[in-house]
Amino acid sequence: MLIDKIISKITHFDKILLMIHENPDGDTLAAAAVLYQVLKKMGKCPALVCKDPVPRPFLFLPEMDKIQSDFLFGDFEIIVVIDCGDIRRTGFDARLKDFAKKKKNLINIDHHPKNDLHKIANLNLVDYEASSTSEIIWQLLQKMKIEIDKNIATALFTGLYTDTGGFKHSNTRPKTLEIAAELLKRGARIKLITQNVSLNKTVPAMKLWGMALSRLHRHSELKIVSSVITRKDLKDCLATYDDIAGVVNLINTIPDSKAAILFFETPEGKIRASIRTEDDKVDVSRLAAIFGGGGHKKASGFTIDGKLIFDKESWKIVLE
Amino acid sequence: MLIDKIISKITHFDKILLMIHENPDGDTLAAAAVLYQVLKKMGKCPALVCKDPVPRPFLFLPEMDKIQSDFLFGDFEIIVVIDCGDIRRTGFDARLKDFAKKKKNLINIDHHPKNDLHKIANLNLVDYEASSTSEIIWQLLQKMKIEIDKNIATALFTGLYTDTGGFKHSNTRPKTLEIAAELLKRGARIKLITQNVSLNKTVPAMKLWGMALSRLHRHSELKIVSSVITRKDLKDCLATYDDIAGVVNLINTIPDSKAAILFFETPEGKIRASIRTEDDKVDVSRLAAIFGGGGHKKASGFTIDGKLIFDKESWKIVLE
Repeated sequence: MLIDKIISKITHFDKILLMIHENPDGDTLAAAAVLYQVLKKMGKCPALVCKDPVPRPFLFLPEMDKIQSDFLFGDFEIIVVIDCGDIRRTGFDARLKDFAKKKKNLINIDHHPKNDLHKIANLNLVDYEASSTSEIIWQLLQKMKIEIDKNIATALFTGLYTDTGGFKHSNTRPKTLEIAAELLKRGARIKLITQNVSLNKTVPAMKLWGMALSRLHRHSELKIVSSVITRKDLKDCLATYDDIAGVVNLINTIPDSKAAILFFETPEGKIRASIRTEDDKVDVSRLAAIFGGGGHKKASGFTIDGKLIFDKESWKIVLE
Repeated sequence: MLIDKIISKITHFDKILLMIHENPDGDTLAAAAVLYQVLKKMGKCPALVCKDPVPRPFLFLPEMDKIQSDFLFGDFEIIVVIDCGDIRRTGFDARLKDFAKKKKNLINIDHHPKNDLHKIANLNLVDYEASSTSEIIWQLLQKMKIEIDKNIATALFTGLYTDTGGFKHSNTRPKTLEIAAELLKRGARIKLITQNVSLNKTVPAMKLWGMALSRLHRHSELKIVSSVITRKDLKDCLATYDDIAGVVNLINTIPDSKAAILFFETPEGKIRASIRTEDDKVDVSRLAAIFGGGGHKKASGFTIDGKLIFDKESWKIVLE
């Protein structure tokens, strides 16, 4: 069986690189952190690599200080790519392709429906039905008869919790909640998790969110809601670019809208648009493509040259 | 066994009044709606009473149109009080005491740790460990071998979901998530629930929230965060007083603060303060008491005569 093959690979080798996706989220970080701990306990020499730094809300996860931003090909016998639906999302696609060809020890553990890593990986533990990669890691640990301690339970719960939007999204299946129940029994600390990953915004961040919300505009014909954040706003609120994350998702919860767009001025003096939709019939990546951007059906974005100007009671984009 | 006694009572009588608490929440409404449906199917004549109207987010629950705001004592053989931790929370305490004495058929189904209805009720199905009254109703239905259909599953899931703050609060126990998993298997419609009870704010509401957030102020010595909403804001945003609900809870998620206060002008031209805390060591009802208000340890409020004025870069309360 596939899962046995994966276990035997992991058991056989020592120098194992765990790779997670760019702009890491709770699931990829949690799944990797757990696997790292398990491998350590097995006496292996694992390493963790991620192109981008760990966002503040996830710094409470174990092993976050072990994450390195680059790696040397030759240092590893095996690479496990975790939660990367897309080869490019790893940020190391060229090297991965090379590794897969030469060393034939690339393992792909993921739950994304459009996973294309299987094209190059040598072993694919991919379950499209799983809510999260953490859910797959749980199944793997069950099979390996690994004892789930408090730390592991807390991390896996974080993965399940964040990837289902707090058990709200349609990827929450009965199995997901059953596993969450098991993790609670093993000591998963919900409060610690939600204190970190739920809103938990600082005063500057909340003020910035407030500015964006107070400027909401609904385009009644298009049924699109939008807002803007300027560089001056960030300064006035003492906020940072990190604080912008999540604003567009919040706007996207407004009922009866087809899409939500947040325009914000980047440090480079451009305008970045983040687009989201909850409507299954809308593909926002097509909207982003018009402006030379890209992304997924439900989340996309583009960048244009321009400035945001307040002119006669409304916000306008002035192209440069 | 107690639960059998309750079942036999319910089975024996026909004219059953289900009573829920004032300012009803998702749990009390869901639990009562489910019990109402079950009794109907059993050929009984149930009625539903609640002192206050159903808040908009819960109108999607079944049987909400059946809720009456008053009742006649003599019309019922038995009263089941659902999710009322406190006799006064029913809004009908005097009549209930009378009923309990005379008819000896007052049943109390609840999960609140400080439930005092047991002092007058004739049968008490009270489980302090349960996340919600809906969780207790689930157990009751299991015992009664009632088939859980999609509607019932959706309602009970709503009760579990709302009373645990979306499975976030510490009353979420493994059993709660296991029941949630069972409810999902029986067709509970998470998306319908979360679309209704999650943020789901209209543009005017979001703008109003934005205004409040953009004016956040942190009193560094007291570690209190506060904000203000004026009557003019409501007008400018086309928002209603209903839209203010939740703002103070949002502000209360700011880390490293001891309490959150929202001041808003009431339609009567006074200032209402809503106070919240997440700090177990803080009792905000004592703060409210100083100004002649009241409430609970974690949520309280007071009303004073005055106006909110913006003066030299900050908001001030001008007493009248």
